[in-house]
Amino acid sequence: MFSAYIEQLGGIGAGPEGVFRASYTDAYEEAVDQVAKWMTDHSLCVRKDSAGNLIGRIDGTGNNKSVIAMGSHLDTVRGGGLYDGALGVLGGVIAAGYLLKKYGRPKRPVEVIAFTGEEGSRFSGLLGSKWMAGFLGDQELRGKDANGVSAKEAAGKKGYDLGNEHDIPRKDIEAFIELHIEQGPVLEEKGIPIGVVSGITGIRQAEIRILGRKDHAGTTPMNMRKDALIASVGLIRDMDSHVRRAGGNAVFTVGKIETRPGSINVVAEECTFTIDLRDPDSEKINRLNNDLERMARETASRADLQVDWHEILTVEPVPCCPLLKEVLGEAARSLGLKFLEIPSGAGHDALMIAKIAPIGMIFVPSRQGRSHCPEEYSSSCQCVAGIAVLAESIRRLAYE
Amino acid sequence: MFSAYIEQLGGIGAGPEGVFRASYTDAYEEAVDQVAKWMTDHSLCVRKDSAGNLIGRIDGTGNNKSVIAMGSHLDTVRGGGLYDGALGVLGGVIAAGYLLKKYGRPKRPVEVIAFTGEEGSRFSGLLGSKWMAGFLGDQELRGKDANGVSAKEAAGKKGYDLGNEHDIPRKDIEAFIELHIEQGPVLEEKGIPIGVVSGITGIRQAEIRILGRKDHAGTTPMNMRKDALIASVGLIRDMDSHVRRAGGNAVFTVGKIETRPGSINVVAEECTFTIDLRDPDSEKINRLNNDLERMARETASRADLQVDWHEILTVEPVPCCPLLKEVLGEAARSLGLKFLEIPSGAGHDALMIAKIAPIGMIFVPSRQGRSHCPEEYSSSCQCVAGIAVLAESIRRLAYE
Repeated sequence: MFSAYIEQLGGIGAGPEGVFRASYTDAYEEAVDQVAKWMTDHSLCVRKDSAGNLIGRIDGTGNNKSVIAMGSHLDTVRGGGLYDGALGVLGGVIAAGYLLKKYGRPKRPVEVIAFTGEEGSRFSGLLGSKWMAGFLGDQELRGKDANGVSAKEAAGKKGYDLGNEHDIPRKDIEAFIELHIEQGPVLEEKGIPIGVVSGITGIRQAEIRILGRKDHAGTTPMNMRKDALIASVGLIRDMDSHVRRAGGNAVFTVGKIETRPGSINVVAEECTFTIDLRDPDSEKINRLNNDLERMARETASRADLQVDWHEILTVEPVPCCPLLKEVLGEAARSLGLKFLEIPSGAGHDALMIAKIAPIGMIFVPSRQGRSHCPEEYSSSCQCVAGIAVLAESIRRLAYE
Repeated sequence: MFSAYIEQLGGIGAGPEGVFRASYTDAYEEAVDQVAKWMTDHSLCVRKDSAGNLIGRIDGTGNNKSVIAMGSHLDTVRGGGLYDGALGVLGGVIAAGYLLKKYGRPKRPVEVIAFTGEEGSRFSGLLGSKWMAGFLGDQELRGKDANGVSAKEAAGKKGYDLGNEHDIPRKDIEAFIELHIEQGPVLEEKGIPIGVVSGITGIRQAEIRILGRKDHAGTTPMNMRKDALIASVGLIRDMDSHVRRAGGNAVFTVGKIETRPGSINVVAEECTFTIDLRDPDSEKINRLNNDLERMARETASRADLQVDWHEILTVEPVPCCPLLKEVLGEAARSLGLKFLEIPSGAGHDALMIAKIAPIGMIFVPSRQGRSHCPEEYSSSCQCVAGIAVLAESIRRLAYE
């Protein structure tokens, strides 16, 4: 069933360069309607909220109205693959349907949520989950896509009322479990089928500009230069070594670098590069980020250069709920599946839902760690193992 | 006289972003006509050759028809200054005029040559001097400007016959002296008014592409990456240190660097950067260039990356004539001017004329080493000192 679902869903919005389903587009709404149909097939009660999040629900038999929720998102990056987001939604539908068929109605209500706009591929990211958590601000509502259409307008055109604040933040969710592909190489490398996520990593992104002096590459002796590029490459190498020495789960990336004027025979007056620093530990990421900034200022001052440090993004780490981690681990163990506790290096809807409920996350291996591309792949066996852990966890939370 | 000339010439082709006179443009021809007029004012005989080089000549009184030539170029880079090239031409006119007035006709013919298209700002560089030396090939003739006009066509439109091979290479030049601004900071830094150029530096330019693997910046542990950028910055730092250790006149520049895909949160799959290596010693530049290429291949192989080394430009060093260096030095000494023997880190028309005649070059200080920009400046005093050394050298060569 899973293979058929994921293939059919992947056909919606598919093009020669991969899948593209941005929130509030026709392709996206077609995917939502298809998943709503599958929810109905599995006897889930379907509704959409004001943001356009799709929710499939099974009411509980008991008095406890707190919801055991699971889910992920249906939108994709441009040129995306079949599994990112889709796995958590389809896995949720299949798990809920399986539990209902095998065990009947749960004690507590169970919901499968397909969040809208998780990827920042049209508007700012985590749109649906941010709305649900009550953190969507004016800036996100007014944020425009490439055609100048705001998120609020786009939602309105599809019949949603993204600005509506009546139903939010939701306070009835007792636990949220997100099943997702790892998007990294660790599980595959180690040959372990299940990742129990320890927490979602914190992120610090900045753009650093080193300012020197433009000089003729032939006529200026090397000791008379203020070479912004040479200072920058030394700094980047030192930053990289520093984060490697710090070890643990810290990762550091310089994805973009450029010089001005950018001529082969002119000493760089300006070198601009980005840094992306991540660690799931709040104290550690702060310390490392401060270290890097100090290193940049010291390097510049030593070489008599100027430095601009421009913060782009700060995301605080979000630990997963210890009790839910235990439930997920026990579920995997009871199914005979090895698991590894690993941090999530990417952001997810669970990051936002953590503001209103305890969260847990399950990872399945990604082939070669690839994601956000048509090559993104997890085998049906791997996906179904993840769905089994999800179902068993939901059984323990909602049926016992 | 010099100040008035350089100011008036600098007004031709002047715009808000500096001077721009590319070869075979109206601005360029206007400059040529103005300088031709000044040549005539100083009793020089004026002609233009097939390439559009402007030549002012004083015939000699003796039987030796070998020419003592001096000069430089009248074209500029886009956004250029007043002195690069112009100094050597105007200085030549003034020096020839002064000698003629003071000493009458020389024993040997004296020529002042204003070469066309030295800068590569429209067609390939050293156009006029390359033609005169007989080294202009089909490739340069057919080379097109930004509007798709070839060098040969552009020359034709102004009445020149750039393809004409009847008069070249010229074999009647016995010595060529080029007066030029240093375009570097050395003379100013040391407070020395005259540079006697030891030779024109050799150049090796290459584009180096390091190929790794694209990975998610958050989900890929640092020890599982093939990060093209981190390998590149380490390599560049090592190359820079290696050339600094080699010392002497060697200079090394990375003016341009970029990554692909160039996203803040994606590990660089590809990093491309340029290198520009210069040294006036032929053996040393070859050895250093081989060292750098070996370092690139070793770095790539150590990190399991691929490397492309794409040669862009090879210019062999050209030593100045020892006899002419002596004449220039004695001329400076006789005028009470301190001088320093320094290499030229930039290319000049003398580089091409060296193929058909012994060459010598005189440098005057450049304020802050600036060049190829509106801020390019040498004081009138500094320029006139250079012109005095030029005149005294020509006197020794043509009148004795």
